[in-house]
Amino acid sequence: MRALCLKDTLRYEAAYPDPKPVDGEALVAVRLAGICATDLELAKGYMGFTGVPGHEFVGTVAKGSRTWRGKRVVAEINCICGKCDMCQRGLANHCRRRTVLGIDRHDGVFAEQVVVPERNLHELPASVSDAQAVFVEPLAAALQVIKQSRIEKRMRVAVIGSGRLGLLVAQVLKTTGCDLEVVGRNELTLNFCEKRGIRGTPVRELAPRADRDVIVECSGSPAGLDLALAMLRPRGTIVLKSTYAQQSPVNLTPVVVQELTVLGSRCGPFPDAIATLARGEIDVDSMITRQLPLDRGVEAFELAADPRSIKILLKIGS
Amino acid sequence: MRALCLKDTLRYEAAYPDPKPVDGEALVAVRLAGICATDLELAKGYMGFTGVPGHEFVGTVAKGSRTWRGKRVVAEINCICGKCDMCQRGLANHCRRRTVLGIDRHDGVFAEQVVVPERNLHELPASVSDAQAVFVEPLAAALQVIKQSRIEKRMRVAVIGSGRLGLLVAQVLKTTGCDLEVVGRNELTLNFCEKRGIRGTPVRELAPRADRDVIVECSGSPAGLDLALAMLRPRGTIVLKSTYAQQSPVNLTPVVVQELTVLGSRCGPFPDAIATLARGEIDVDSMITRQLPLDRGVEAFELAADPRSIKILLKIGS
Repeated sequence: MRALCLKDTLRYEAAYPDPKPVDGEALVAVRLAGICATDLELAKGYMGFTGVPGHEFVGTVAKGSRTWRGKRVVAEINCICGKCDMCQRGLANHCRRRTVLGIDRHDGVFAEQVVVPERNLHELPASVSDAQAVFVEPLAAALQVIKQSRIEKRMRVAVIGSGRLGLLVAQVLKTTGCDLEVVGRNELTLNFCEKRGIRGTPVRELAPRADRDVIVECSGSPAGLDLALAMLRPRGTIVLKSTYAQQSPVNLTPVVVQELTVLGSRCGPFPDAIATLARGEIDVDSMITRQLPLDRGVEAFELAADPRSIKILLKIGS
Repeated sequence: MRALCLKDTLRYEAAYPDPKPVDGEALVAVRLAGICATDLELAKGYMGFTGVPGHEFVGTVAKGSRTWRGKRVVAEINCICGKCDMCQRGLANHCRRRTVLGIDRHDGVFAEQVVVPERNLHELPASVSDAQAVFVEPLAAALQVIKQSRIEKRMRVAVIGSGRLGLLVAQVLKTTGCDLEVVGRNELTLNFCEKRGIRGTPVRELAPRADRDVIVECSGSPAGLDLALAMLRPRGTIVLKSTYAQQSPVNLTPVVVQELTVLGSRCGPFPDAIATLARGEIDVDSMITRQLPLDRGVEAFELAADPRSIKILLKIGS
């Protein structure tokens, strides 16, 4: 099959081996996929991943049980054992033996076909378009923020980082009616916020004052984290949404002295994300900058790294 | 008055200026005081503090309103304005204009007399001895752990660091009936734990496995924090009790990937600590290694830094 393959560098391959599903797995024909910051990090060597990257996608089940065949689906990215202590206690996303679609020992979705456990599948309603469905995984991660931290109307909340994830988190937070602000470096994406009634503050214009109740750190940079710690009021909450690819010197003294709460936050609820998109509550369509065919995948990665882009999609099948 | 004074180095002074209370303040004759890790850090230059250090103490009110005169008291350490946004919203311990007894722009208790706001005072019942009363402040900080984080009987909980604070936190946690372990380097204090039915594990014998539900970090060292992060199960909680005097390179990636909760924790409830001591629930008496007079204060600081000591007290008045 045709696929993007990462092995030291990212390459397009016209004849990558076809994946073979075993019992309990489905073979999904990928229709459309999205490139996210994790993919860009993987391409730079993060996690030492080799194989087909990609985990944000929509596809049609080509092979699998009768329940699933022919269905238009998205899939959760953690492939679990179902038996370890984490799976047994309801923390399956943290399965001790998990592989992760396109991230950790499991070929991903930048290919014509992908194999995923059937338990990972979610059927899409007709009201969610293919392009919208690609956002289910990151939107689920954004929705997790309001699952973990109670956001109330009177709260002062800031999102640090106006990248792809920051824009989704900001739109999710806006639905709570809180006093919201997005702090970033990118004029394009700050304008995106302003157009949606969300205050966008360029980081250079920020006068940090320790008065925010909740901060969601989406920049993934040590500077962003330091800024977040400086903006948070005593006893405030910071939600960390980005993985920090490198060891970064973080001074945790403010966490103790100011009695802060730090919440690590990763995956979120797919059903909620699908329902949110079906209700049209979040605008993902205008986040799409361009759509390229799979054989121009390497170019698509370059575009995705360009600050003038928001979301780059790969058109793979139909 | 006689006092220990910190100005670059720690010195005993026989004729330090007497403090003068203003309206709303009490003058307290210090009876007994305790040396803690923060005092040792201050003596090394932490916070750039100059003046009389010390904040753990018991004394008798010598001057003040009629309500308080002659009472045997302990005092909270944050001296607040009562007017700023933090004070107004019930976060007075984080008052924007606060000074802190013996720590930040407010002379402390290693002296014959100390001035504190009357609103900071708590009267002691006769059932709490002077020596026990010195532990009210650190015990309150230890009790804060079970206020911030719900500890249940089935939980696996570890305390990292078997110093003064770690031993208090461990004893508080033991009252919850959880599956408890103290990890440390000091045989003396690990034995102290074992004698009280608390498992003490030397850090060199530890086989870290990510299976603890809650970890309380009391070591104050970056290595202790890294160890804590390695021992915590996904979605677990780490409570940070120590201030990290130096910027320490902490890798926060596990916080995100494992979806951990990090709780900064500093001061705690004085009334609960007094009640706990009055009920005899926590053994503080056998934590006292030695008691020295005020004029041997510099020697007492050296002893407090010695791993063969647990708690060193300064006998000041009667």
